[in-house]
Amino acid sequence: MKYSDLDQCAAWEKLRSLAPAGKQFDYRARLTAQRVAACSVPMAAGLGYNWAAKAADDGIVRALVELSEEQELPAKYRALLDGEVMNTGENRKVLHQLLRGQSGAAVIHEGRDLGAFYRAELDRFCAFAEKVRSGEIKGGAGKAFTTAVQIGIGGSDLGPRAMYLALDNWAVKNGKKKIEACFISNVDPDDASAVVNRVKLDETIFVLVSKSGTTQETLANELFVRDKLKKAGLEPARHMAAVTSETSPLAHNPSYLDSFYIDDFIGGRYSSSSAVGGVILSLAFGGDVFREFLAGAHEADRYALEKDPLKNAALLDALLGVWERNFLGYPSTAVLPYSQALSRFPAHLQQLDMESNGKSVNRRGEKISYATGPVIFGESGTNGQHSFYQLLHQGAGVIPLQFVGFTESQRNDDVEVDGSMSQTKLNANLAAQITAFAKGKDDGNANKFFAGGRPSSLICGKTLAPGALGALLAHFENKVMFQGFLWNLNSFDQEGVQLGKLLAKKVLSGNSGDDALDAYSKLLGI
Amino acid sequence: MKYSDLDQCAAWEKLRSLAPAGKQFDYRARLTAQRVAACSVPMAAGLGYNWAAKAADDGIVRALVELSEEQELPAKYRALLDGEVMNTGENRKVLHQLLRGQSGAAVIHEGRDLGAFYRAELDRFCAFAEKVRSGEIKGGAGKAFTTAVQIGIGGSDLGPRAMYLALDNWAVKNGKKKIEACFISNVDPDDASAVVNRVKLDETIFVLVSKSGTTQETLANELFVRDKLKKAGLEPARHMAAVTSETSPLAHNPSYLDSFYIDDFIGGRYSSSSAVGGVILSLAFGGDVFREFLAGAHEADRYALEKDPLKNAALLDALLGVWERNFLGYPSTAVLPYSQALSRFPAHLQQLDMESNGKSVNRRGEKISYATGPVIFGESGTNGQHSFYQLLHQGAGVIPLQFVGFTESQRNDDVEVDGSMSQTKLNANLAAQITAFAKGKDDGNANKFFAGGRPSSLICGKTLAPGALGALLAHFENKVMFQGFLWNLNSFDQEGVQLGKLLAKKVLSGNSGDDALDAYSKLLGI
Repeated sequence: MKYSDLDQCAAWEKLRSLAPAGKQFDYRARLTAQRVAACSVPMAAGLGYNWAAKAADDGIVRALVELSEEQELPAKYRALLDGEVMNTGENRKVLHQLLRGQSGAAVIHEGRDLGAFYRAELDRFCAFAEKVRSGEIKGGAGKAFTTAVQIGIGGSDLGPRAMYLALDNWAVKNGKKKIEACFISNVDPDDASAVVNRVKLDETIFVLVSKSGTTQETLANELFVRDKLKKAGLEPARHMAAVTSETSPLAHNPSYLDSFYIDDFIGGRYSSSSAVGGVILSLAFGGDVFREFLAGAHEADRYALEKDPLKNAALLDALLGVWERNFLGYPSTAVLPYSQALSRFPAHLQQLDMESNGKSVNRRGEKISYATGPVIFGESGTNGQHSFYQLLHQGAGVIPLQFVGFTESQRNDDVEVDGSMSQTKLNANLAAQITAFAKGKDDGNANKFFAGGRPSSLICGKTLAPGALGALLAHFENKVMFQGFLWNLNSFDQEGVQLGKLLAKKVLSGNSGDDALDAYSKLLGI
Repeated sequence: MKYSDLDQCAAWEKLRSLAPAGKQFDYRARLTAQRVAACSVPMAAGLGYNWAAKAADDGIVRALVELSEEQELPAKYRALLDGEVMNTGENRKVLHQLLRGQSGAAVIHEGRDLGAFYRAELDRFCAFAEKVRSGEIKGGAGKAFTTAVQIGIGGSDLGPRAMYLALDNWAVKNGKKKIEACFISNVDPDDASAVVNRVKLDETIFVLVSKSGTTQETLANELFVRDKLKKAGLEPARHMAAVTSETSPLAHNPSYLDSFYIDDFIGGRYSSSSAVGGVILSLAFGGDVFREFLAGAHEADRYALEKDPLKNAALLDALLGVWERNFLGYPSTAVLPYSQALSRFPAHLQQLDMESNGKSVNRRGEKISYATGPVIFGESGTNGQHSFYQLLHQGAGVIPLQFVGFTESQRNDDVEVDGSMSQTKLNANLAAQITAFAKGKDDGNANKFFAGGRPSSLICGKTLAPGALGALLAHFENKVMFQGFLWNLNSFDQEGVQLGKLLAKKVLSGNSGDDALDAYSKLLGI
């Protein structure tokens, strides 16, 4: 298999020559009901991906398909599934898809079948969660647990938190919710203090999540919590479980009720479908709900194997994103789910995408000179409409948009006002925005003129259930993976976070070696 | 006074000629302890603005000062304070600073002293809040209120929510918190349903916030809540207060316990210091806390009158932002508060900035051809470090950074781990990041190479108390105002939100007039 820089591909010059056509794409003439019907790609779990409002005509699509073939995208994905070392810099396999099911060959590492290992851990933490939910495992004061607090940061926080919020209403409605989840992430001591003072400690189980077992923030927060438990007369070991790797100090450690394991082949930002997301979600909603979530994600992983980009939503989404980033020159993308349950999903995607592809060297460690991952930001709609949409519609520059919507709410607890239900209003706004962004509006008053020409895509489904959430998450993980292949990046390391950590340690050791850094430290009371 | 487009200013060409020097600014040589000390500007409420890590040498600063003089920035601000019509398109004054105190002449409109009007409303809602907090005003079942739920969207949600979260820990610590606040914003019915099912309705007061009294989302959510109250056997009129304008249907209406008024001169995104933010904050923390918040903001408003940009943090921040946006060509800015209490402050600034200056016509309604407001995004630190900082450090393109930090936590409930307190770790990370972003690091391995050259500024203070929060908020409001003057925009309207609203109404009326829009509606179950 050949790993080429994007600008070394034959498709590069071709796509460059097509860029003027893309920039002048005539949405008003071209965006018709017929195109909306034609540009629909089925996804897992009953979702669909619609790209009608993208600036891509037949010639552009053909060039993108050629690019996909030239970069051998599905074959690279298959190699990843089969256990090839895809995290080249750190010499690691990349196996988060394997957590959800086996799509490729068995992956054997040092004599161990890793798929079997992940499944065994899944079984273990689901059984543990069931014992906690049933009250068989109780806290130090003999009370059943009613609250679970995840202590983790980055991938151990953003994904699990977003998933928990996404399913909370659904779980309440479907009688699955038994335990309330909270999250402590920041090293800011006010974060842990606020959470610990809000919960009933004697009914709370803490889930400590750190793959290495050495994350500065997480360890500081753990000690904070242990101290509070002791002061409340509770034995910490009876209120804490751990999610970590087998080689970490948190493994096989009697200071925890139990420890559940992942390994170095599960990157933090890809760990929502491992024990990192699984323990807290299983505690809150039950192991069966988490398994449904995994099944949706696994189905999406299989859809992503399809070679034809026009039948593979993750692949097509990746190609269109590169088209917009490298050839149309758009530096950011907004993620806009019309679902309050997905309020923190954009924050998770922000990490997933920006930490994976916010890079300037290729997978061989050579400098590249084309644009890579965009800035990702977003809020749920309709809230965003009352916030930053002004700039999206009339600001300087074009920002591509990723919409998500569902035909039904999660709670089915709705009200009719002025002849329509709230869910209908929500979706009428979503449909209206896609059209307004694409087609704009002429007006003699420049203040009321909308240029249009803002591309968007829409992922929609029936309702945000666990399977659909899994499929949605996997779609974006796979999109980011394909874009990494397109840009010839290693999407699975994060060397860019090291320098700050290193300098922070130097400050704490009292020897920063930089007088400006000392001056800043002094300003901040250090 | 002369209102000129930015590219018509004499400073435009001069700054363009200085851009290469800005792009090559040598942080490693120039960012010294001496520069950190020299580039510090005092702000209100004991805060300070430090711009040492900005790509601006003496010549560039001199040109920016000339630009400020040429665009008569402090004079335009003074005209605004004195009641000149600054929202030109809508023919309205702009008076949010007047809510906080009188810095200019008395503003008389149709025979009424508006400063006196705002003060009277402040007194009224503070008195109301006190009666609710003391239990003198009770709910329909005779119980004192323990929860207040704000129903509002956009400016009636983002600012108040961010301010509430910012002061919650402080208020608990200082014995000021009496009522828990929640927020309903989205027209998604799951939003209201989740909140209403979580609270004790008989102990809950709802604060309905809509200036016009016609906001689609807010009215739908109000009816949802009224229905739930009735079903719970509670009289809705005894559980609801309103914040609106005097001409709206919500005014002088017996369906509410009381109504508090603002007017058309208070824009939604600038309304946190009006009754829009004041009622919910006074209910939660008391009127005295809200008045401290206003006092901090008022002090910042007075600091912003200073003519010398080197002594006026809001003005300097605005100028440096324009330097980065128009001359260095950076399309987005990240806001990174190292304080978990400010977790939603970036979302508020996102609206404030992007809705105010995300425009392409000048205040006379003529098309302009230079870049205006950037994309604003951010999360609290250290969380962001474990998320999107990878791209900030090593991604393609430079993103200027706005840091915020405090020497002390709000709860003073901290723990020592490995020889340092959590607050110290937090701030060591902050100082380290500023330095790492600016200076980078050479490395033979391109993966571990950091180019540096990422500019940032730092606002820091002792602790996030109400006055400091008010000063922080006003700083950004005034910065955005000055940037609007620099770009010759009307920062106070939002015509860009109208088209989507209009099309959504058409969809709901069953006659969209666009077959693609109908096709999208059908996809979404309408």
